[in-house]
Parts: sequence; C-alpha cells; structure tokens
Amino acid sequence: MTRLHVSAGSEFGVHNLPYGVFSTEGTARRIGVRFGDAVVDLSATLGGDDLAQPTLNAFMAQGRDRWIEVRRQVTELVLSDEVDEGSVHPIDSVTLHLPIEVADYVDFYASEHHATNLGRLFRPDSEPLMPNWKHLPVGYHGRAGTVVVSGSPIRRPNGQRRVPDRSEPEFGPSQRLDIEAELGFVVGVPADGPIGTDDFAEHVFGAVLVNDWSARDIQAWEYVPLGPHLGKSFATSISPWVVPLLALEDARITGPVQDPEPLPYLRERRSWALDVDLAVRWNGQVVSRPPYSSMYWSPAQMLAHTTVNGATSRTGDLFASGTISGPERDQRGAFIELTWGEAEPVVVDGRERTFLEDGDEIVIEGSAPGPDGSRIGFGDVRGRVSGG
Amino acid sequence: MTRLHVSAGSEFGVHNLPYGVFSTEGTARRIGVRFGDAVVDLSATLGGDDLAQPTLNAFMAQGRDRWIEVRRQVTELVLSDEVDEGSVHPIDSVTLHLPIEVADYVDFYASEHHATNLGRLFRPDSEPLMPNWKHLPVGYHGRAGTVVVSGSPIRRPNGQRRVPDRSEPEFGPSQRLDIEAELGFVVGVPADGPIGTDDFAEHVFGAVLVNDWSARDIQAWEYVPLGPHLGKSFATSISPWVVPLLALEDARITGPVQDPEPLPYLRERRSWALDVDLAVRWNGQVVSRPPYSSMYWSPAQMLAHTTVNGATSRTGDLFASGTISGPERDQRGAFIELTWGEAEPVVVDGRERTFLEDGDEIVIEGSAPGPDGSRIGFGDVRGRVSGG
Repeated sequence: MTRLHVSAGSEFGVHNLPYGVFSTEGTARRIGVRFGDAVVDLSATLGGDDLAQPTLNAFMAQGRDRWIEVRRQVTELVLSDEVDEGSVHPIDSVTLHLPIEVADYVDFYASEHHATNLGRLFRPDSEPLMPNWKHLPVGYHGRAGTVVVSGSPIRRPNGQRRVPDRSEPEFGPSQRLDIEAELGFVVGVPADGPIGTDDFAEHVFGAVLVNDWSARDIQAWEYVPLGPHLGKSFATSISPWVVPLLALEDARITGPVQDPEPLPYLRERRSWALDVDLAVRWNGQVVSRPPYSSMYWSPAQMLAHTTVNGATSRTGDLFASGTISGPERDQRGAFIELTWGEAEPVVVDGRERTFLEDGDEIVIEGSAPGPDGSRIGFGDVRGRVSGG
Repeated sequence: MTRLHVSAGSEFGVHNLPYGVFSTEGTARRIGVRFGDAVVDLSATLGGDDLAQPTLNAFMAQGRDRWIEVRRQVTELVLSDEVDEGSVHPIDSVTLHLPIEVADYVDFYASEHHATNLGRLFRPDSEPLMPNWKHLPVGYHGRAGTVVVSGSPIRRPNGQRRVPDRSEPEFGPSQRLDIEAELGFVVGVPADGPIGTDDFAEHVFGAVLVNDWSARDIQAWEYVPLGPHLGKSFATSISPWVVPLLALEDARITGPVQDPEPLPYLRERRSWALDVDLAVRWNGQVVSRPPYSSMYWSPAQMLAHTTVNGATSRTGDLFASGTISGPERDQRGAFIELTWGEAEPVVVDGRERTFLEDGDEIVIEGSAPGPDGSRIGFGDVRGRVSGG
C-alpha cells in the first residue's frame, strides 16, 4: 500500500479527478482517473460493474448521484495511505484510448467572433451574421465514427475544391487544412425529449477539449445548401480526460449579455457559461489563446436547443461548441481567422505560415479555475498531420 | 415439420428473403427472414453466433461470402419440407423492431428534380441548383439516435420559425410538417478509408425505405449556413425489412447521363442505379409514385463520395438518397414540392391538403423487379403524426 503524491500547483489535483480509459502493455482497456502524473485504475480499486468497462458509457449512464458517490470514493482513495501500488500507473506508461463510445456528435457555432469572422471570409458580400444567429445556437451533426482520441494521426483529406475562374472543380489533397479549437460536452443520462437548461447537470457528465479538423477548400465548395460534410468528417480529435462537470463549479461565470433576449426555452436561471482558457500550440509555439468565456451561447443552451424539437438523447452523445474565438487576433481558434484567409500569416518555426503542412503538430491545451486557487486541467488534444 | 407456402405474385417470395428483427410476446428480439406472410426465425433454424443477435449488425459485419452462404441456406430452408413449425410466425403475430443499430446516418440530396424544386421554393431569387450539385452528391449527417422503425409514433416537433415581416422568430409546434420518401442503404463491412464505386457490394448489405420527416418552417429558419438540424432530427423512420443487395441484381439499370462527367472517383464501371418504384399513401390514398430510377446520383457514388476524404465507415452506417422526385408532379416525394409550397393543394379524404395534420398516417411502399418476372417488395414504412 502506498500514498499518492501530487505536486503543488498540479492541474490534476484532488479538485479535478478526470476520467479516462487506459491500457498497459498486453492488458485490456479500463477506466482510470488521473491524479497528478499518475493514473489510478478504478476497476481495480473501486469495483462496480459500471466501472469495469472499456468506455465510460455505462458509468455515465448511472446519473448524477452515482457520479457524486464515485467522486467521493475516488477523493477518499487518492488522499488515503492505502492505495494498492499495482493499481497506480505513471501517466507515461499507459496508452490512453477514446474515453467514450460516441453516439451522436453535434457541432455548434457558438462564438460570435468566430461566426462573424467566418461570415466575412466565406461570404464577403453579405452580412456576416445570419438573421437566425442571435436567436438560436446554430449547429449541425458531424460524423460520430471519426471522433478519435488525442494522438491519433491526422491524414490530410482528399476532396473536391473550386478552382478560380473555372466552373469545374479539381480533386486532390486539401490545400487549406485547418484546426478548430473547441470545448465538447458529453451526455451521460439519456432523455426521451427536451432537456431544459435547468436540467443540464442532470444529463451532462463532463467536458473535453476538441479539435475539429477542417479542410476549408473542400468545405467552401461543398457546404451550400446542406452544410459542411467532407470538409469536416475525416477526423475530430478529443482529449483523453473527461473533466466532470462536478469539477467545474468554480469555473461557472455570468455569460455575455444576450440581445435580443432568447426565447424562454433558451433562458438560464444560472448560466453554464464557463471560464476555460485554451492555448493552441503549433509545433510547440503558442499561436493563440482562445477564451471559452467569450462564447455567446452556453452549453446548456446548446443542449436545450438540440432537444427542444423532441429529439431523444443517448449516453455518449457529444456536442461541441464550435471554434472558440475571442475578440483579439491572438484569441482566434482557427487558422483561417488567425491568418485572415492567408492574408496575414503567422510566424512559426521562423517561417510565415497559414494552413497546415504535413508533419505539423497541433496541441490544444485548456484549464479552468478550481477551488482554493487551484486550476482544473483538461490536459491536451494533439494531432500530427500526415500526407493523404 | 412443415412446408412453407407463399402466394403466387407475392413480393416476398424466394427471390427476396429480406432480413429483420422481431419478437413475439414475452420473447427477446431476434433475427428473422420474411417469406410470404410468415417470419422465419433464423436464430432457431440456422444457428450461428452472428444470427443469434438482437440486431443485424454482427451478421452484416461478416461480409459478402457469409451473406451469400446464409441466403443459400435460407433459400434451401424455405423450399424444403422440413421447417420446424415453432420457428415460423405469422407476420401479424410479431412485433418488428429497428433491424440495425445505426452507426452514422448521412442523408443525400441526389434527385435532380427534388433539388431543383426545393431550390426554386427556398431560394426563388437564385439559380435552383447550386454550382456544386452536378459535381458531387451533396449530403449531410443526420441524427442516428432518432432513426426509428416503421410504426413508431411521430410527434410533431416544436421549434423556431420566421414570421413574415418580423425580425423575431416565434416558437411552437411546426406548422409545415412534411415527409421525404427516400431509399436508404446499410453498410455491413467497415472500412478504414475510401470505398470505391466498384467495391460497393462488398460493403453494403442492403436497402430500406426511409421517411425523413421534415419540419419545413423550422428548417427554413435554421438551415443557413450549416444545413438542416432540428427540422429533421426529431425522427427518421425506416422500413423493418432490409432487402439484401443480393436480391436487387435484376433491379440494376443504367443510370442517367451525368453531364458534366463526374470526377474519376465517382465513375462506375457498372451503375448501381436501381429501378425501385415507391408509392406514398396519405391516409390510405396514393398521392405520389416517386421513381428511384430517376435519381441523378447512384448509391455507390454516394458511398464513394462519403469516404473519399478518408472517413472511416462502420457496420450500421446508414445513408439515404434524399427525397425521390421524378419529373412529373405526381412523382414528387415531399409535400412541399407536391403542393408547390402550399400553392397547389392535393385532395385527400375529400379535403384540400398541403402539410401534415395531427392524426394523419403516411405509408411509403416500394418494390423492384426480381428474377423471372417476380417483384421484390420492400414492404412499407409508416408513421402517424400526433400533437407535439
């Protein structure tokens, strides 16, 4: 038996305790909690059929009372002197897997700065924000089957793109491969219909970082009138640690003023706006720091909207915020905005850069305020681009 | 032991043999084959782990050799004198369930007549067909979790809609609830990347009828710029019988001339265009007969396009054609087209009608040519609308 240690200032201290799925060489996938630089095997320590699983889905389906109880048990365990050494693994010794089995994946467009920037770039002759944008969180379904865990290689997609001054498109590897730095939310408890904003924390288990890789040339050609498809569907990366909503109470803030006032089903008694700071590293260098606090629509509003038509929800439903872009240039969460459609390159590795080249590695990090001055780390979501 | 009988001219004769999932009172869901007006329990007759399942997914994942072998065994069984009576159930005595566990659901827009009609109705001031339409099968991801089996009640969705001459939307039950008569295709064998048009039948197991219920008022307000979302995500109904591709060889026809010639990855050595006749019944009365033979893009082209960017495919992926509309008015597969946006009502039950009212029942039927002058029935997909 041993006692676990965590360095002062760790973003994975006792106030965080995010859940993931790991394996060690030759062993099966199982659920673990990150504490400092260690992974604690929950199937080996706590027991429970819902924890002896290769994904978090069965546990997430149990609901908030169970989530609170397991969090209490994990807290007690990591603070005790009685952790079995065999159930603790250094973070560098494990392989991390996709923590959830994704049911449906919906991607929103909830940053006013991002939507305005994209509108200017994609539709320079029109009003950048569509008339619906301030009345509802615009979103669409993405491809659940290509949601992959951080570290998965990102193959450059092939596709069609418009050629200037020609009516025929050309085909080939995307030449405008981009990122989208987002925050994603995972549904635990299913629902037969509408999930009101007040019920958000009864259904949503936790949050992850998301990189919604985007091929802008493919997207620009295909997206009218039914929205993005192949420009997005090749890969969406998520971070391996699901930070429970229970760890994000101190990150809750007052959301932005919403004007016009949203319809009643989108109003919140207390906002689920969150103060999460992201950073985007391009080959190691921070090029942007998107602030989730600047988002126009909250995640509770996104889920209320998704379900207000009566659509059912399932355990493992993932919905993401859309690109997080703040008001400043160095807060933009996509390179098409950061470089203003290639007009204003950024310097990376001493060279002017706009879109992704083969070999580039993108790491998106995130953290939020926790109790007692602590930080709640999301860890990171990373991916390296290879040729198509 | 008994011998099964099927009436001459049945659309469920020995050349069809579609697969479904059924239960009888108090028993578990299991796989059956429809033969005439009977359901033959495959788990009880043939054995095999892949057939002793509550969905078709495990069987579909086995691949074409196994599909051919089981089809041979089923054919032999239904023609023999040695069918165990306990494994045969009258069709009226069973409950039919969703036959597949849906992985991702993609909906296309592959009818030139439909896309042209919708373009005229939604965007009267622009060219009806977008510049991309003849270069790629336009499609988008729908909500897999709300794909339901025929007979499931359809609750009228709530949502936002534009109000003429006002900038603020209003909220309430959809006033323009519509249908879309489509054909859907189910992926059996997964793939790590592109599925070329020549490999269609190695991956796709079979086809179903689809009714993609659509709330036109919600859709018209929300769909710019990221495509349809709540206007479609409340329910998509599919028929309970999956007709194997192996039963559709005689339905293969030459597709329409595609001009301009598609890019190489969309070309087919032999087209997967199919001659399937649909009929739409509104409270029993046939109001439209959409011909699948009129579709511009074939299902092999749809799947090749979906995966050409490297997107992986999973067992249970469902992709649908989009509304099937022929060139004639009474061949239009959606009421918004059939009634030209309410300008030209149809008479049902002696009254002029445009969109769906509570209590309306829609039944979409379909059949295709089979060997020796037979017809291959898809059965039907039905749904009754109730108040939201």
